[in-house]
Amino acid sequence: MIDLLSRFDSIRAVDWQGDHLRLLDQRVLPFEERFVECRSPAAVASAITDLVVRGAPAIGIAAGWATLLLVREQRSCELATLEPGLAHLVAARPTAVNLAWAVDRMRRLLATPGCTEQAVFEEAQRIEQEDLQANQRMAMLGSELIAPGSGVLTHCNTGALATAGLGTALGVIRAAWAQQKLKGVFAGETRPWNQGARLTVWELFKDGIPATLIADSAASHLMSEERVQWVIVGADRICANGDTANKVGTRQLAIAARYHGVRFMVVAPSSTIDMAMPDGSGIEIELRDPGELTHSRGVRTVAEGVDAWNPVFDVTPAGLIDALVTELGVVIRPNTRRMRDLFAAS
Amino acid sequence: MIDLLSRFDSIRAVDWQGDHLRLLDQRVLPFEERFVECRSPAAVASAITDLVVRGAPAIGIAAGWATLLLVREQRSCELATLEPGLAHLVAARPTAVNLAWAVDRMRRLLATPGCTEQAVFEEAQRIEQEDLQANQRMAMLGSELIAPGSGVLTHCNTGALATAGLGTALGVIRAAWAQQKLKGVFAGETRPWNQGARLTVWELFKDGIPATLIADSAASHLMSEERVQWVIVGADRICANGDTANKVGTRQLAIAARYHGVRFMVVAPSSTIDMAMPDGSGIEIELRDPGELTHSRGVRTVAEGVDAWNPVFDVTPAGLIDALVTELGVVIRPNTRRMRDLFAAS
Repeated sequence: MIDLLSRFDSIRAVDWQGDHLRLLDQRVLPFEERFVECRSPAAVASAITDLVVRGAPAIGIAAGWATLLLVREQRSCELATLEPGLAHLVAARPTAVNLAWAVDRMRRLLATPGCTEQAVFEEAQRIEQEDLQANQRMAMLGSELIAPGSGVLTHCNTGALATAGLGTALGVIRAAWAQQKLKGVFAGETRPWNQGARLTVWELFKDGIPATLIADSAASHLMSEERVQWVIVGADRICANGDTANKVGTRQLAIAARYHGVRFMVVAPSSTIDMAMPDGSGIEIELRDPGELTHSRGVRTVAEGVDAWNPVFDVTPAGLIDALVTELGVVIRPNTRRMRDLFAAS
Repeated sequence: MIDLLSRFDSIRAVDWQGDHLRLLDQRVLPFEERFVECRSPAAVASAITDLVVRGAPAIGIAAGWATLLLVREQRSCELATLEPGLAHLVAARPTAVNLAWAVDRMRRLLATPGCTEQAVFEEAQRIEQEDLQANQRMAMLGSELIAPGSGVLTHCNTGALATAGLGTALGVIRAAWAQQKLKGVFAGETRPWNQGARLTVWELFKDGIPATLIADSAASHLMSEERVQWVIVGADRICANGDTANKVGTRQLAIAARYHGVRFMVVAPSSTIDMAMPDGSGIEIELRDPGELTHSRGVRTVAEGVDAWNPVFDVTPAGLIDALVTELGVVIRPNTRRMRDLFAAS
């Protein structure tokens, strides 16, 4: 097995410093590598809301460390005392399930008798380490599905910036690249926040993987020219039937992929799967500030008076997904039965 | 019939001033209403290449007036003398068929014995007037297809800015709005040049039509929420079988519309139809400067070294088009036979 973790280790988005959490400020990348130091749980919650840190797994990891900051701030390991702070943390972003998942994991730990600050520290560290190991495993599992000579298209940023390292969808792309399987890597801009244009192509370029940027709208033309055989994306929440909430535009890519006979892969740790949510119809889609569409770098780019609608996630029906790659294994053409089997087998 | 032309007449993108052509500079809209004065055919060709003027019909009209400038510059109405200048004009943009169509129309006129400068003037004027009348007719024909209470989504800019006035797809939207049929109008940003964000919502806002801007990628989510019943777009070139080249992203919208049961309308004058081109496989897709993706207002927004691919058109298969609206009539579910019937009947 290729040691992907040592080959691709240049970026640390979420970095515990012993007494505070250091976050790589993703709002100013790729031109500035600025860090935000969070010394309180509220500071981490704000950083999550403001997109200093983003990407479902990275948010979950940050929430783990935020719980440790909360324990220290409150000088208590009592769940009842900490609950308001934990609830505030969960509310920082509504769509990403990993945030709630990490906080719930901390809640369970805090509910155990005799829970200590040291135990909370170790749990936060474990969340981070497990993510790293899961990414290595998913990268190899996903890459196995890709035939040599393939082109791939990805959306948003699912790399080291969005995780403890390596990435989910970008982890698969890194592994396939390391195995010399890829003839082309394309990334959509990912409007309105431009995660693809600002983060993904930068991350890949740093690793010597020459990705080509396209307008999100050019994906269908790219597919019609047979330049890509796989679309590979991450996920913010996966339902019991395999319906997947991810960055807005993912649904459109999945529909276009099916039309063109291009295959569609979702790569996400099992912590992203919410078996309590039967299907995508129940997922709350986060609406963000219309200013993300009407302004650019603080300057208005759209005529005064014009309104915008800015949903930042959408739901891809399970029926459009060819493979769901998790650290527990791969689900081919996910449905409720196959999703249950994934957990039963593990 | 509603007099759409007097109701919606605030914008003149291409305006003949007796001795020069005045173009509204679409590169600096919506914040500046600046004009470019073209006193030579070469100046018009540059303005077409540089997107001072854009939109297939507007480019055709500009080419008509450029021919008059050429005749005056060369002090000749002889086709052979003018041919190098005409060829230079046609080369200004490769995909829009109206440019070649307008120049060919001028070539035919110049080939008639005794052609005069006055005749060239009248032909340029006729191209413009015919476009205006065609738009009024298409607006009414297209609006007839729309049920009251509908929402519509459009792409790129197909309004007064792209034509002699009123617009093609935007003409239909204006008519349907005037007839109080629309409960919502949505416009995609239209990356990378942002015709939707900069031009379309501005144009509609000026007319009191409150359009809502969305990211191009949000179209499928919009459709899944049943907020739109029609996607309405223009065209740069339509093949004999109905395959349609239009702004990049159109293909993706058509695929998404079909998936969601949303109907898809193309609105374009018959001058856009190229019966000599059997289907979309023969259409040359213009690739523009990757800088349109890597820079914003002259400032680099993507990491140094990163490459981009920037096709600015794509082809929508005829099979995804529910209605093609021309000034000659409407073609429901276009194919080669029905396209021939359109011309046979007229």
